[in-house]
Amino acid sequence: MTTVATHEGEWTPSTRRRVLDTAVRLFSRYSFAGTSLQTIADELGLTKAAIYYHFRTREHLLLALMAPILTEIAKVVEAAEAERDAGARADVMLTGYADIVAANRALAAITTFDPSVRNVLREQPEWSAVIDRQFALLADEDSGVAGGVNAAVVLTGLAGGASMASRHIDDDTLRAELVDIGRRVLGLSEPDS
Amino acid sequence: MTTVATHEGEWTPSTRRRVLDTAVRLFSRYSFAGTSLQTIADELGLTKAAIYYHFRTREHLLLALMAPILTEIAKVVEAAEAERDAGARADVMLTGYADIVAANRALAAITTFDPSVRNVLREQPEWSAVIDRQFALLADEDSGVAGGVNAAVVLTGLAGGASMASRHIDDDTLRAELVDIGRRVLGLSEPDS
Repeated sequence: MTTVATHEGEWTPSTRRRVLDTAVRLFSRYSFAGTSLQTIADELGLTKAAIYYHFRTREHLLLALMAPILTEIAKVVEAAEAERDAGARADVMLTGYADIVAANRALAAITTFDPSVRNVLREQPEWSAVIDRQFALLADEDSGVAGGVNAAVVLTGLAGGASMASRHIDDDTLRAELVDIGRRVLGLSEPDS
Repeated sequence: MTTVATHEGEWTPSTRRRVLDTAVRLFSRYSFAGTSLQTIADELGLTKAAIYYHFRTREHLLLALMAPILTEIAKVVEAAEAERDAGARADVMLTGYADIVAANRALAAITTFDPSVRNVLREQPEWSAVIDRQFALLADEDSGVAGGVNAAVVLTGLAGGASMASRHIDDDTLRAELVDIGRRVLGLSEPDS
């Protein structure tokens, strides 16, 4: 966890980090649309002004929360698109996505499921494009209707599986299960390595 | 669509039905927590009093919306639990669930994904129990961690696949795709019939 020296000289998680962590928890529970900056401030015992010091609007807070996970997805999309054949492209996208959702369980669910979050992301051309490319990598064009449905099930199902998984399942075990499931859905065999 | 005679003698969709249809559309877009009764009233050009005449609170409106789909799920759960072996139980649950989500695409996504909806359902012991039994039918106990993750991916992924599917895909085609995917995830072979 990021720590900073407070004016009192103690090392504590930065206020910015505490706001972001509390926001994930509240968005998971009440949805983005159902959580005001006031609620986040109350939960932390801060004034709303203290929140505004770090985030100009609720949308800015959401984008600050999403940026790391979306940046990671963008990197996986780039790596997957560099592969030659469709199967390898889908497998790189799948394994990268499983990594990300296993390590960011609550955030993955918010990003994938919350309609009010999707509306904010849709207004960001850069992130919308990444999400579209991610979908295209998983949807085998040659398999028509089935390809699109398979991709949608993998994207939502892996995020759902990660967010519902017990905390007792460690990230590596969860990731391996999600990759296996994704390969069965997409009809991919385990690549030789 | 349900129609009733208005005072003017015309046949129009009942106000109750119009409120419910508009609510699904707005909840899908802004989430349940992000949609007030006032927003629904404004969208329909009604007064808030006209909405209150049909639904005492926003939670009552949500439960009226969910009741038909939850009743259908309860019926499938009953039928599945009557099967002798675990594979047949999972298959009856899976095919029934695929039917329901293919026919109720927007509503399935709201029921499965919206955290503010899940909070309302969790407070209804009858529906919570149905949702738990549905999960248990899909999660093969013998396969430990994998069984639970598989069930979570199927429940969320099929709802996600249905809600993201193009309107051009008819319900029967979508249902068949979802059943195939679910069987691959759960490791079920197509039953002889």
